[in-house]
Amino acid sequence: MELTLNSPLDMHLHLRDGEMLKNIAKFSAQEFAGALVMPNLVPPITNIESLLSYKKRILDAANDNDFKPYMTLFFKSDYTADFLEKAKPHIAAIKLYPNGVTTNSEGGVEQIDTKKLALIFEAMSELDIPLCVHGETNGFVMDREKEFGVIYEQLATSFPKLTIIMEHITTQASTELLERYENLYATITLHHLLITLDDVVGGLLNPHLFCKPIAKRYEDREALLKLALNANKKVMFGSDSAPHTIDKKECCGCAAGVFSAPIALSALAELFEKHNKLTNLQAFVSNNAKNMYKLTPSKKKITLEKKEWIVPSSYDDVVPMFANQTLKWKVKSKI
Amino acid sequence: MELTLNSPLDMHLHLRDGEMLKNIAKFSAQEFAGALVMPNLVPPITNIESLLSYKKRILDAANDNDFKPYMTLFFKSDYTADFLEKAKPHIAAIKLYPNGVTTNSEGGVEQIDTKKLALIFEAMSELDIPLCVHGETNGFVMDREKEFGVIYEQLATSFPKLTIIMEHITTQASTELLERYENLYATITLHHLLITLDDVVGGLLNPHLFCKPIAKRYEDREALLKLALNANKKVMFGSDSAPHTIDKKECCGCAAGVFSAPIALSALAELFEKHNKLTNLQAFVSNNAKNMYKLTPSKKKITLEKKEWIVPSSYDDVVPMFANQTLKWKVKSKI
Repeated sequence: MELTLNSPLDMHLHLRDGEMLKNIAKFSAQEFAGALVMPNLVPPITNIESLLSYKKRILDAANDNDFKPYMTLFFKSDYTADFLEKAKPHIAAIKLYPNGVTTNSEGGVEQIDTKKLALIFEAMSELDIPLCVHGETNGFVMDREKEFGVIYEQLATSFPKLTIIMEHITTQASTELLERYENLYATITLHHLLITLDDVVGGLLNPHLFCKPIAKRYEDREALLKLALNANKKVMFGSDSAPHTIDKKECCGCAAGVFSAPIALSALAELFEKHNKLTNLQAFVSNNAKNMYKLTPSKKKITLEKKEWIVPSSYDDVVPMFANQTLKWKVKSKI
Repeated sequence: MELTLNSPLDMHLHLRDGEMLKNIAKFSAQEFAGALVMPNLVPPITNIESLLSYKKRILDAANDNDFKPYMTLFFKSDYTADFLEKAKPHIAAIKLYPNGVTTNSEGGVEQIDTKKLALIFEAMSELDIPLCVHGETNGFVMDREKEFGVIYEQLATSFPKLTIIMEHITTQASTELLERYENLYATITLHHLLITLDDVVGGLLNPHLFCKPIAKRYEDREALLKLALNANKKVMFGSDSAPHTIDKKECCGCAAGVFSAPIALSALAELFEKHNKLTNLQAFVSNNAKNMYKLTPSKKKITLEKKEWIVPSSYDDVVPMFANQTLKWKVKSKI
């Protein structure tokens, strides 16, 4: 049995830089036609020069795999309309991080004041630049995304022409917001479709499933599954695949992030098949994103075959999701 | 400034066995007059012979520090009234573990059916043997203790003469149960007075604060603090200090447990002083337990002085709570 996906897209990806970029870019480049690349390097990508230089390093690391990096800028509250106009041809979106809420988010926005930032959001609306948001407050870890809901509502109602993407949503509350406001969209990760907080701290502690936003309750996962499996047009796949070396994950004070790029399509196929929704996978991993972002990726086709394989314990020194476990679908070839 | 505590008691302690016991017993033996020792060895302590032999190994490891181990049996649903009568002189309590809810709880009770187990609970009531309970279901990690509340209520109402100790409570819900039923008591750990889930997974992942029950929300911690700081007569200090070697804590699939024995009294003094409740510490760490368990520990006095010290990064290969951090009170001498 085979399954062919046309132009699969990963609309939320961390590719890092330097050696890590060189080591891990291939996992996404081989299996996706493109990906929205997050700008939270150290220092973050905040100007066109560093963005284009980063894009070149990504294309080099992708090694001719017919892979398109859709670039993003790290939101800064001093961006001008003039700058945004110049940036527009080079970017697919701007990513907003509240200061300090996740890996390398230092330098993010201290306070999301929709009045003070109105000029930027209006310029983005005008230029049709989507705003991607890491939607968490600095509150209690299980409440951070839900508390951020008021900010999403302010943004959605104050800037009705702004396309707002709630990144890596993890809660039922966010799925309700999505239904309520026309200009709100969302990405959903693989891991948030599969795990709950129980998988992180419910049995033995699993640092490899520790991520931000933290996985939530069963009812939250159900709400996310419902959207993804039914290929709701407002949701897209975004892996949030985030590699850290093993010493940063199995330690004291471990980094947040799940490295899912090498297994994302296989695991998604297994999940959608299990729920008898395999025919909706194409929309979730490509069509919805193409429509929403108005993308024209290459015609790259990825074929998966129903064939068991065991996920390696690590790729170099990065442990992937499902390490040492068996998956039922295997990427066969790129045509 | 000095503070002298009379006969401090740790009413919930894991001393393990073998090399670990030999390495860590001194930390409790030097600073406490006695401790209630948990029976969840592998295999668990379920008969008098293994209990007495374990007690002897503890006393050897305690190395003449005038330390009294109060022994417990691991609850089994086939205990008879006759067995309990024979065990009574050797034990301070029986510890009930629902099967599989925490470290070495395999072989615990599959279903706590108060009717099927009535003969045991009645015999324990008759013999005045307290029942210590690890009160968690197998539900979602944040709900397990609250869900167990119905079992506590069944036990409390079905066996009004049974002394029931809710071990290491972590929720506001449990503090309310405590007020509602006369025969319910509780132990509270040091770490649950200090941390919330934010300290475990809210920033970087901290495996050394990963414990069962998992630390909960701020309002839960407030409710526990209120009981402890006011020396509520129904609560006692129980550290639940649970050593694991560093390779079991900083790894993939890490064990639950905080090793607090070496710093427990210092950190408690600092906490109680911070809240201007230092005069209530004596009741929390000794008097309440003596009254409830009807204990006559030795007259051991532990003096702490107001003197900063840095907690070692590890004791042998076990990382203590507050490793590398400064505490304000230091245990000075045993008189």
